Amino acid sequence: MSVKCWSRGKTTAAVFNSAGQPLEYQFFPVPKLAPGEALVQITACTLCGSDLHTYHGHRSIQTPTILGHEIIGKIVAIGPGDPICDFNGRPLQTNMRVTWSITASCGNCFYCSDGLPQKCEHLFKYGHEVLSSTHPLSGGMADYCHLVAGTAVFPLPEKLPDLVACPANCATATVAAAFRVSGGAEWCRGKVLLIQGAGMLGLTACAMAHDYGAREIIVTDIDRKRLEMALRFGATRCVSVFEDEGKINSIVKKLTSERGVDLALELSGASGAMADGLNQLRTGGRYILVGAVSPVAPTPIFEEDIIRRMISIYGVHNYTPPDLAEALRFLKDNYNEFPFSSLVTDKFRLDQVEEAFQHAIRSRALRIAILPQA
Amino acid sequence: MSVKCWSRGKTTAAVFNSAGQPLEYQFFPVPKLAPGEALVQITACTLCGSDLHTYHGHRSIQTPTILGHEIIGKIVAIGPGDPICDFNGRPLQTNMRVTWSITASCGNCFYCSDGLPQKCEHLFKYGHEVLSSTHPLSGGMADYCHLVAGTAVFPLPEKLPDLVACPANCATATVAAAFRVSGGAEWCRGKVLLIQGAGMLGLTACAMAHDYGAREIIVTDIDRKRLEMALRFGATRCVSVFEDEGKINSIVKKLTSERGVDLALELSGASGAMADGLNQLRTGGRYILVGAVSPVAPTPIFEEDIIRRMISIYGVHNYTPPDLAEALRFLKDNYNEFPFSSLVTDKFRLDQVEEAFQHAIRSRALRIAILPQA
Repeated sequence: MSVKCWSRGKTTAAVFNSAGQPLEYQFFPVPKLAPGEALVQITACTLCGSDLHTYHGHRSIQTPTILGHEIIGKIVAIGPGDPICDFNGRPLQTNMRVTWSITASCGNCFYCSDGLPQKCEHLFKYGHEVLSSTHPLSGGMADYCHLVAGTAVFPLPEKLPDLVACPANCATATVAAAFRVSGGAEWCRGKVLLIQGAGMLGLTACAMAHDYGAREIIVTDIDRKRLEMALRFGATRCVSVFEDEGKINSIVKKLTSERGVDLALELSGASGAMADGLNQLRTGGRYILVGAVSPVAPTPIFEEDIIRRMISIYGVHNYTPPDLAEALRFLKDNYNEFPFSSLVTDKFRLDQVEEAFQHAIRSRALRIAILPQA
Repeated sequence: MSVKCWSRGKTTAAVFNSAGQPLEYQFFPVPKLAPGEALVQITACTLCGSDLHTYHGHRSIQTPTILGHEIIGKIVAIGPGDPICDFNGRPLQTNMRVTWSITASCGNCFYCSDGLPQKCEHLFKYGHEVLSSTHPLSGGMADYCHLVAGTAVFPLPEKLPDLVACPANCATATVAAAFRVSGGAEWCRGKVLLIQGAGMLGLTACAMAHDYGAREIIVTDIDRKRLEMALRFGATRCVSVFEDEGKINSIVKKLTSERGVDLALELSGASGAMADGLNQLRTGGRYILVGAVSPVAPTPIFEEDIIRRMISIYGVHNYTPPDLAEALRFLKDNYNEFPFSSLVTDKFRLDQVEEAFQHAIRSRALRIAILPQA
C-alpha cells in the first residue's frame, strides 16, 4: 500500500482522533525537507503501553495525532544545506538503518541547559504531536516519518534484529535512564535490586541489571507467566504480588542480611506498588519511579521514615540521547544472552492498525509490531 | 561545681531518666582513657530541638542517658599509645578548643563502606547513648565528655566565638549535609530556593544558601519574628504559612518565570509542609527532607506527578565528618556577615539544666546554652 502511495507522491498514516473512534487513514504529500531534517521510511513500529492507554482513553493527549513512537526505519532523504550528523557525529546517509530519540529538543532553553532535554520548552515528541499541516508525519503508525532538525539519530548496530531494536528508543532507553539516575552501571555492581513489574520495562531492567553485575535481581508482578519470563531475563528471584507479604519480606531479608534492597525500580505503574517498594528498601536505599505515567492511587509518605532511613526517591520520565546510546550498546551486547527476540509476538501491516491495537489489548502481548512496508 | 568535682576525681552530669521526671545529677569517676580516646572539658552545650522533644517525651530514646550533643570543649587528656589525629590529620593536643562529630563510626561496616557513617552498625552517638558503667560520659549536660576512638575531632577556628561554634556539630553540619545532597555549593549558584522553617536550621540554611550564591532564598514559617530574622540571615523573601496560599504561589511564579523553585529544604518538621514544598518545585526540582525527625501526618504522594515533573526527594539524617568540616569553614567565613552571635539567647550553669529546659520550651528560644565551667 505505502509503496504505491510513495510512487504517487503520497504517504499514508493511521490518524488517531479520539478513544472509541476507529483510526482514520489519511494521505499526506511527501514532505519537502528543510535544512537539518530527514525523511525515514518506517520499517517497524512497536506499540508501547502508553499508546494503548491513549487508544483506550486512559491517557489524555492532544488530537488528531499519529500514535507510535518506538520506531526504526531507513533514511530515504536528507534536507539541503550542511550535512546532518548522527549522535556520534558521523554524517547521516540515505539507506542508513536508524532509530532516534523520542524527543527532539532545542538545546538552548532552561531545561535543555539543565540536563533535561526531554522537558525542553520547545519539545517535539514523536508519536505525540498534534497533526499539523506543515509537519504531519510525526508518528510511527505511518509509512514515513519526517525528522525535525535537532533530532538525535542513531545508526542501528549491524546485526541487531529489527524487532529487537524497535523498542530501544522508548522502553530500553527509559530503563537506561532509570539506571543512570540510580547511580549507573558501576554503582549497580554487587547490589541487590527489586524490580516491580515484569512487563517490557521490567524484563529489560532484569537483563540490564544482570549486565551491570547486580548480585540479586528480585522481581514482582501479578502475572505468573511474566515472572517465569523474568527468570529468563536474568531475574534471580520472582514473587507474585498475590503471595503473602511475608514471602517477599523473607526473601529480601535473607538476601540482604536483613537490611533491605539497595535499589528498587517501580516499573509496574500499579496502585500500591510504591508503598511496597519503599518498605523493601534498606537505609540509604534508592527508589526510581518510572511506571506510573497514568493516574494511580496516592501513596502516603511517612516523612520521618524517609529521613531516618535516608531514602532517595527519583521520578524518571523519558530519557536523554546518551541513554538511548546506552540502550543500543546494551541491546547489541546482550540480545543473544536473553530472549529479546521473543518479546514482539505478533506483526501487522499498516492497513491493520485497528486490528493490531485490539489484539495488543486482548492478548496482553508485551509488544506487537506494525510493519508499514509489509 | 565541676572544677571541685574534678579536683575530687569526680565528674558531674545531669542524667535524663524519663519525660516528666527531673534530671538527676550524678557523679562519675574521671575516666581512664584507652588508646584512641580523649577527655574533653565541656565549655558549652546548646540545647537542640531534638533534646527538647526527648525531654517532653515526644521522641523515644533509650534511658538513662546524658542529653546534649551540640558540644564544644577543651581537650584535657589524651589516651595512651599512638598519637590521635584530628579530622585534618594533625595530632590532638591538650588545651585544643574542639568540637566533634555527633556520631562516631567503625569505618568498616556495610554503612560506613557505603558513605553513610552516620548509620554505622556500631554507631556511638553523643547525647544519645544509654548510660554505661564503663563509658558514662557521652553527652553534653556534663562537665566532661569522654571521646571514643574513631571520633572525628575538629579544632575550632581561632576567632570563632564559642557560642557560634557550639551548634556547628548538629544544626550547621546537618544543613551542610542537606546542601551536599542537593548538589553542593556549585550547583546552588544562581538557583531559587524555598526554605521551609526559620528555626536554627532554616536561618543557617538561609545564610549558607547566600554563601553558595543562590539567586533567591524564599522562606516560610508560622512565626513572623523568625521570618524577620530570616531576612537578616540572607533570605530574599519571607512568607507566613498562614498567608493565603496564593501569595507563596505568586512569589514563586514571579521569581522563576512560572517554573517553580529549583530546590526546597523542609526544615520545619511541620505536618503538611511536604505537600506544600512539592507543589512549589519546578520540573526537575529537588526536595530535601530534614526537619521531620518526630512523627508528622503522612503526605499523599501522586506518583504520576513525581514522574512527569522528574522530582527527586532525599531524606537527610545527621551528616558525615566532611559536612562538619564544611560547617566550620562556613561559620568561620560568615559569622560576621550574619547575626549568628544573636542566636544563643540565654546561658545557664550545669546546676540549672532543669531550668534551662523549662526556659527553652517556654520562650521558644532558638538556642540556649549550658556552660558547665561557669
